[in-house]
Amino acid sequence: MRLELINIGDELLIGQTINTNASWIGQFLSEQGVRVSKSIVIQDEKMDIVTQLTECLNRADVVIITGGLGPTKDDITKITLCEYFEGNLVMHEPTLKLITDYFAARGRAMLETNVQQALIPDVCTVLTNLNGTAPGMWFERNGKIVVSLPGVPYEMKPLMTDEVLPRLKERFEFADIFQMSVMTTGIGESFLAEKISDWETKLRQEGLSLAYLPSPGIVRLRVTSYKGQSDRNRVYELVQELKTIIGDYYYGEEHDSLAQVVGKLLMAQKSTVGTVESCTSGALAAEISKIPGASAYFEGSITTYSNALKKRFVHVPEEVFSQHGAVSKECVEIMAAEGLKTLQVDYCIATSGIAGPDGGTIDKPVGTIWVAVAFNGGVFSKQFSFGGNRERNIQMTVLAGLNLLRLKLLNRIPA
Amino acid sequence: MRLELINIGDELLIGQTINTNASWIGQFLSEQGVRVSKSIVIQDEKMDIVTQLTECLNRADVVIITGGLGPTKDDITKITLCEYFEGNLVMHEPTLKLITDYFAARGRAMLETNVQQALIPDVCTVLTNLNGTAPGMWFERNGKIVVSLPGVPYEMKPLMTDEVLPRLKERFEFADIFQMSVMTTGIGESFLAEKISDWETKLRQEGLSLAYLPSPGIVRLRVTSYKGQSDRNRVYELVQELKTIIGDYYYGEEHDSLAQVVGKLLMAQKSTVGTVESCTSGALAAEISKIPGASAYFEGSITTYSNALKKRFVHVPEEVFSQHGAVSKECVEIMAAEGLKTLQVDYCIATSGIAGPDGGTIDKPVGTIWVAVAFNGGVFSKQFSFGGNRERNIQMTVLAGLNLLRLKLLNRIPA
Repeated sequence: MRLELINIGDELLIGQTINTNASWIGQFLSEQGVRVSKSIVIQDEKMDIVTQLTECLNRADVVIITGGLGPTKDDITKITLCEYFEGNLVMHEPTLKLITDYFAARGRAMLETNVQQALIPDVCTVLTNLNGTAPGMWFERNGKIVVSLPGVPYEMKPLMTDEVLPRLKERFEFADIFQMSVMTTGIGESFLAEKISDWETKLRQEGLSLAYLPSPGIVRLRVTSYKGQSDRNRVYELVQELKTIIGDYYYGEEHDSLAQVVGKLLMAQKSTVGTVESCTSGALAAEISKIPGASAYFEGSITTYSNALKKRFVHVPEEVFSQHGAVSKECVEIMAAEGLKTLQVDYCIATSGIAGPDGGTIDKPVGTIWVAVAFNGGVFSKQFSFGGNRERNIQMTVLAGLNLLRLKLLNRIPA
Repeated sequence: MRLELINIGDELLIGQTINTNASWIGQFLSEQGVRVSKSIVIQDEKMDIVTQLTECLNRADVVIITGGLGPTKDDITKITLCEYFEGNLVMHEPTLKLITDYFAARGRAMLETNVQQALIPDVCTVLTNLNGTAPGMWFERNGKIVVSLPGVPYEMKPLMTDEVLPRLKERFEFADIFQMSVMTTGIGESFLAEKISDWETKLRQEGLSLAYLPSPGIVRLRVTSYKGQSDRNRVYELVQELKTIIGDYYYGEEHDSLAQVVGKLLMAQKSTVGTVESCTSGALAAEISKIPGASAYFEGSITTYSNALKKRFVHVPEEVFSQHGAVSKECVEIMAAEGLKTLQVDYCIATSGIAGPDGGTIDKPVGTIWVAVAFNGGVFSKQFSFGGNRERNIQMTVLAGLNLLRLKLLNRIPA
């Protein structure tokens, strides 16, 4: 099965909206062993939709389309597909009922434009949308399939999992792939490649493939076999070897985030954590509690953005500011140690740094960050020089804080 | 000028990396009056790159390519383009020096793979990359232009602004567009469309176009004229009319975020703000201090994730938990009022809600959120029913908190 993706929307081309639908669908399908061969973004123009769909159907067996199903005047996907497949729009009563119920449940008035969303081409199968007002549509012609889904992510995703995937599985044999991933942090892509070069060569000689999947602060390494479960044991062995080579840079598997891994360690050790944040300003606390159930180990956090609050809440003495500055080993260690006491937690992570764009000096340029971890019996800290922009510096600091705590929880940091 | 974009990378197709480059380039160029006509993601395969490039060059005058220039074995864009344009790879000494300096400045050892990044096709103009090790490349053939840029966003962006745009402006006449945007919050796309329907009809009759650009909690409305500055006054008048129609839902212009608008209001009123957060767990504080210079008005924050910290830090009495629960008007108003005192700020925003996926009840389903704002003289609060997933509920709560403070600062909320 060859599958291509068309995302329709001027807002995607002019960059107003980031195309998270393409990445989500790509990831979702790749985990089912289906590869999106090509993904194309086009504008809300009838001719563009028709031309692109024709092109894609020349190559692909399945074309998934997202977007352009909204109630406003620039949403033209439904009428265009209706014409393309030579159908007529007819009122679809079950959809009308769902839309009516949708508005009733929210206590909101239903508009004429919403009623029109229940007009559906009579040449498609309706894919029921329980999370919004635009249903999905499944068209077939000459053995090829075209699926149209709303562009709103939380409407599109359940339609993919509950409606589209089961129907695709009925129609196509899914490739038998077997994949394992290893998550790394604290080491760049080049250095990682150098470190695992011999291992990688061996892997490729065995017909397996390796993907480096970097995001800020993280590189995911993914091994893929196209022989499926029969390669399972060999892939597993190779991944174990890989972990040994990588050592402390290895932090988790598959989709693990650092926050998840740290959360699991804290749960296993029945320990709690809190944060005292300056440059990250709550972003570290927010990252920790992104994990559902974080309340089992996360107590809370103090953002001491001003020096006044650093004094009042975590008792950083004036001399520390005058002698070392707020971005210093001395300051961040006091923040962590005092946070441990006042938050009454087993571990406290503290951050202080120059996120930028302003505030840098020759001694402490933008991107200079101190992170400390306090625990019952001590505190340790580390300086980082991220040198990126504000957003990236904050993001990298969040990951650095979680990683230091992880290493401490694993007894990899002597104390 | 017709421009198409090719993003190369398996990691984009399998959804490991979100394609923020496409959105950034789309937005950057659209502000220059250049529209990305189509944007295509393909895999790191030589044949795919060659085929796609040929297809794009049949339609477009300019093709911008990102990705596949890294030092690892799966990065094949450079060698493919070198062959496509019938050149040879030669050592480019200025690039080698930049790479050497890049590693020296970071105190890191240079690897053989990095040296190879200084091998450049002798048929292109080198676009100097000051932020990484892979330079950009500018190819020309038969009056058409192909630009290859690294996929790392903070390397790609300066190359676009400093190298690519000036060169494009030398070669092409840029369309004379004039655009104005209005940012709205607290009203959905359908209701907004209904509210401004007559105005929108008038606008379209005058040959102007309107785009609805929704993101969670926000709808941006963008008016475009293709007559450039000559339409300036008329667009301005129409936008003023629009603001009157929208009323309190209108919060800013162009790229304003709610955090920026609130920051400006606080600066103008010489006031300070802090937050006491439960379900948002620092995300509201982090959003406020995303704005460079936020330290002028943002003091800090307390995340009282556990009820124990709600008692200890902001003195929520046990009876409130037993009688109303932590997700209640009573609790969130005490959090805000006590936060005002302990953080010593002029305004304090508090949040408490059920972000999900667990913790919902029949009375208080997932997505039930209370937000309060305290000020000198009082406190007010509002309940929201977002009903989304965890991530979205947190994001919507952050925006709701900022919007309530905005309305208070504008005296739109009686107190």
